[in-house]
Amino acid sequence: MEQIVGKQSIQFQQAAHILSGAAIVGKKEGDGPLGKYFDKIGEEEGLFGCTSWEEAESNLQKEAVSMAIEKAGIEKWQLRMIYAGDLLAQTIASSFGIMGFDTPIYGLYGACSTMGEALSLSAMAVSGGYAPYVAAVTSSHFGSAEKEFRFPLGYGNQRPLSATWTVTGSGACILGTKGGKARIAGITTGKIVDYGFKDSLNMGACMAPAACDTIYQNLMDFNRLPEDYDRIITGDLGEVGQRILFDLMKEKGFDIEKQHMDCGIEIFDSNTQDTHAGGSGCGCAAVTFVSYILPKIEKGEWKRILFVPTGALLSKVSFNEGKSVPGIAQAVVIEHC
Amino acid sequence: MEQIVGKQSIQFQQAAHILSGAAIVGKKEGDGPLGKYFDKIGEEEGLFGCTSWEEAESNLQKEAVSMAIEKAGIEKWQLRMIYAGDLLAQTIASSFGIMGFDTPIYGLYGACSTMGEALSLSAMAVSGGYAPYVAAVTSSHFGSAEKEFRFPLGYGNQRPLSATWTVTGSGACILGTKGGKARIAGITTGKIVDYGFKDSLNMGACMAPAACDTIYQNLMDFNRLPEDYDRIITGDLGEVGQRILFDLMKEKGFDIEKQHMDCGIEIFDSNTQDTHAGGSGCGCAAVTFVSYILPKIEKGEWKRILFVPTGALLSKVSFNEGKSVPGIAQAVVIEHC
Repeated sequence: MEQIVGKQSIQFQQAAHILSGAAIVGKKEGDGPLGKYFDKIGEEEGLFGCTSWEEAESNLQKEAVSMAIEKAGIEKWQLRMIYAGDLLAQTIASSFGIMGFDTPIYGLYGACSTMGEALSLSAMAVSGGYAPYVAAVTSSHFGSAEKEFRFPLGYGNQRPLSATWTVTGSGACILGTKGGKARIAGITTGKIVDYGFKDSLNMGACMAPAACDTIYQNLMDFNRLPEDYDRIITGDLGEVGQRILFDLMKEKGFDIEKQHMDCGIEIFDSNTQDTHAGGSGCGCAAVTFVSYILPKIEKGEWKRILFVPTGALLSKVSFNEGKSVPGIAQAVVIEHC
Repeated sequence: MEQIVGKQSIQFQQAAHILSGAAIVGKKEGDGPLGKYFDKIGEEEGLFGCTSWEEAESNLQKEAVSMAIEKAGIEKWQLRMIYAGDLLAQTIASSFGIMGFDTPIYGLYGACSTMGEALSLSAMAVSGGYAPYVAAVTSSHFGSAEKEFRFPLGYGNQRPLSATWTVTGSGACILGTKGGKARIAGITTGKIVDYGFKDSLNMGACMAPAACDTIYQNLMDFNRLPEDYDRIITGDLGEVGQRILFDLMKEKGFDIEKQHMDCGIEIFDSNTQDTHAGGSGCGCAAVTFVSYILPKIEKGEWKRILFVPTGALLSKVSFNEGKSVPGIAQAVVIEHC
C-alpha cells in the first residue's frame, strides 16, 4: 500500500507514460487562440458530414482515438482497453464512437471532469500491470450539449455572461508502460462537493469549490506548494469560476494565481468569439490537454503540472426538480520524463 | 504483465476480497422469489418517502452503501473510493446518492452492465495496491427508468412480452485486500457488440450477443470449459435473451444451459408478477448478486462463478434517431476463499 499517499491520492510506483495525444475540434475552436495546435479542425461547426449532432460527436471520438493510435505507433489490436466518456445521456457519443474499434471498454461519467477520470483510471490500469496500452478519450459538442442540458439551438435562447460555451471536440491519449516524454506520476481522486448553487448557467461557480477541494487535498497529500507545479490547470471553470477558486484557495492559505490556467479560458477569445465566461464540456479539457499542454510537458518547458478537469453534476431532470448542481474535480499529476 | 491473460482478461496476482454486500429493494422485488434474501424492502414501490423517483433512487444507493459499510465492519472514512453508476442521464442517482459519504468517487456508465464494471474497476484498484477498501454500487428504479427511456408511468402504455421490468433497488459491495469468504480472481472486459437490433422493448435480444462474446472470450482467455464454473450468471437477459445466448454459445461450440442463471429471470415470478421477460436495470444484477449469489459463494456452495452483467447501450435520443441498441457485458470471476 506504499502507493497510497495522504487521504485521497496515489503516487504510482510505475508511472504510466503518455505516448500520444490527438484532438479534433469544430470550426469555432479552430478559430480560437489554440487553433494552430489542434490536429484536425472541422470545416463547419456542427455536423461534420453526419445527420445529427450526436452522430457527429461520436465521429469526433472515433477520429481522436484513431489519430492517437497512429501517433503512438501502435496497432489497434494492441490497445487493451478504452476508458471513454461524454456528456450525453447514457454516454451515447462514446458508445457509438468507439464501438468500431472492437476493443474492451469502460464507460465513464464525470461530467466535464471525465478526462481527469479517464486519465486516472487509465493510469491505474497501466501502472497496475493490467494492460500494456490503454486509451483515454472524451468529447463534447455544442449542439448536442445545448439540446441535452438547456434548449434546442433553434430556440435561440439568450445566455447570461456567466454561461460557458460547450466545446465541440474530442481529445484522446494513448498510455503505455514505457516511451513518450510525459508520465502520470500520481492522481488525486475527487469528492463530490455541493455548495448548494442551483444555476446551470453559472457552472464555473458550481465547480470552483470542488476544484479547490481537490487541489488543496493534492497539495496536502503530496506535501507540496503551488510552486511545486509549473502549472495548475483546471478544466472549464471559466472567468467566473476562476475568481471563486482563487478566493477559496486563499481562504485555505494558498495563492495559486501565478500557476493557474483554465482550459475554458484558453480555448476561446471571449472578446471576439462571444463565448462569455469561457469554453466548457468534457471535450474542452481533453483537446486543450492533448494539443496545448501535453506538448509543453513533452518538450520539458513544464516539468510538472497538475491537471484538474472539473465537472458539474447536473442533469436536466435534477435541475428541473430543483436540485443543486454539485461539482467534482479529478486531479492528475503529469511530469516530463 | 503476468496478470494479463489472453485477449481481454486479467488474472489478479492479489485477488480483491469481497467483504460484504447489501441490498435494498422495492415492494415488488420484495414480493418476488428472492424477497427473503434482501436486507431491506420498501413498504411501497416508488417513492420511499421522497418527493421524486430520482431522489428515491439516490436514497437507495445511500442505504445500500451504508449497510455494506456496516456489514464490512469498517468506518466510512476508511473507504478510499466509491465506484458508482446508474441508468439515469448524467448518472444523477449516483451523484446525489453518494455525495454525502464525503468519499472520492468515480462515476461509471455501462447501462445494466454497470455492476460488472464497478466490481471490475474496484478489484483493479484494490489488487493494484491503490486502496485498502473500496465500494462498488449501482441502482435502478422502475419509475425513473421508464421516464428516462420510454414513457412516463402516467401514460399507462402497454408492454410487449419481450419487455423486461426495471428493478427498483440498489446493491453495494465493499472490497478489501483481505477478509471475507469471496474474492474477485479475475475479470474479462467487454467489447461493445452491435447486431443491429433496434427494439428497445426487447433488450434481452440486444444484449445476448454481447453476453456471448464476453463469456466465450472468458472461456478462451482462462482456458476453461463451462463446467469449470458452478454458475455462469448474466445480469438481465430475461427469458428471450437467455434463449438467444444459448443458441449463440452453441454456435461457438459451448453448451452453457446447465450452468446458466440470469438475475432478471430469478428476481421476479413472471407468471404471477406480470413482469414479462424478467427483471432488468443495473439494480437487478446488483441486488441479486449481493443478496442471493454472494452468500452461496461465501458458504462454499458455489466454488467459482462467472458473473456477467449485461448492458444495452441506448438512450432515448439514440433510439429516436433510429440507431441500433448495441450491447456490452462485463465479466467477473468470483471464487470462494
